[in-house]
Amino acid sequence: MIPIVSIVGKSDSGKTTLIEKLVPELVRRGYRVATVKHDVHGFDVDREGKDSWRHKKAGAHTVVISSPTKLALIRDVDHDATLAELRDKYIRDVDLILSEGFKKNTQPKIEVFRKEMHQDLLCTKEDNLLAIVANQALDMGVPCFDLNDAPGLADLVEDKFLKAKKPFPVELWVNGKAIPLSPFVQNSLRGTVRGMLSSLKGCESPQSVELKILPD
Amino acid sequence: MIPIVSIVGKSDSGKTTLIEKLVPELVRRGYRVATVKHDVHGFDVDREGKDSWRHKKAGAHTVVISSPTKLALIRDVDHDATLAELRDKYIRDVDLILSEGFKKNTQPKIEVFRKEMHQDLLCTKEDNLLAIVANQALDMGVPCFDLNDAPGLADLVEDKFLKAKKPFPVELWVNGKAIPLSPFVQNSLRGTVRGMLSSLKGCESPQSVELKILPD
Repeated sequence: MIPIVSIVGKSDSGKTTLIEKLVPELVRRGYRVATVKHDVHGFDVDREGKDSWRHKKAGAHTVVISSPTKLALIRDVDHDATLAELRDKYIRDVDLILSEGFKKNTQPKIEVFRKEMHQDLLCTKEDNLLAIVANQALDMGVPCFDLNDAPGLADLVEDKFLKAKKPFPVELWVNGKAIPLSPFVQNSLRGTVRGMLSSLKGCESPQSVELKILPD
Repeated sequence: MIPIVSIVGKSDSGKTTLIEKLVPELVRRGYRVATVKHDVHGFDVDREGKDSWRHKKAGAHTVVISSPTKLALIRDVDHDATLAELRDKYIRDVDLILSEGFKKNTQPKIEVFRKEMHQDLLCTKEDNLLAIVANQALDMGVPCFDLNDAPGLADLVEDKFLKAKKPFPVELWVNGKAIPLSPFVQNSLRGTVRGMLSSLKGCESPQSVELKILPD
């Protein structure tokens, strides 16, 4: 299951800016990161006049734009999804999900706080607060990082959520669904596939392997 | 499995315009339609400066924007997906998928043709050509519709792909994955759920039922 960490904070505390620092730091370390942004007011993501915009305008429930390097999907929904629901239905192929906002969700949180903007924090330790990122040291019983200390924060996230996954980096999707694999099954799959491939020309020492069986 | 019909045609033949006519006609008849647009050159769907745009720019592999009524997802991919793959991985909750383009896919096709733009058709009957939409009658061994005859074309699509699904309108998704149900299982699920609900106050004659068990 992909771990989720929420970057929360009152308005204008610098959530997006922190994500802009944390994501490249994690990407530099070899992780794939998904971000989730909550928008209570609805939003308009596509550009007026584009074909896909015209499809949606005509009443399409879902519009997908597919290219060799990027995919976009815009769809109607009938309720405000939880982070767990978004993860289970829409997000795959990543190591970590960072949400901006979603304070009410139960996932671990990192609060961004700037004294000159607000008097109090949004969260208490009881809100599953993992760390604070602030422009001054705060003693809330959780680690406190400087606004510019993305490496320090990335260390924490890596230690808590990512390193544990590394010894068994085997992922299986069947019919588009992630199949949970025990360490034993992961090891055995890895051994079998690497074994099969090692007899193929050009695959003498297969380390990273991506095997896809596409639908007809 | 959600049926797919591709609207194909040479450039500027009027594919988007036809989709703009066909989608509302199908929606008016009570169907949910997804559209898929192929973009060989990549695309830029989000708006510069928006938080989600900043997330992607910072290196996020996937960005999701979630609201109570709409959801958008933008992600990196490593190959050009087939329509079947897009359906199986990304599209749900709809009755029909209309693609704009994707001529090389094997799905049934409707070709849009305007004599003043091009000399020849793109498809032959061997390309799984279902119908032609043109500004003059063409005899290609498949039905030919006028460019403005969205109702006629919707009749054909409904007859071929949608009506057959109507007697057993039970859909089941488990962990985000569509579970294929035989007519027998659909009938039995429908009977059981309706039966259970009929004893609840306010649910005396349950017809349309949507039951969701959300992940923790």
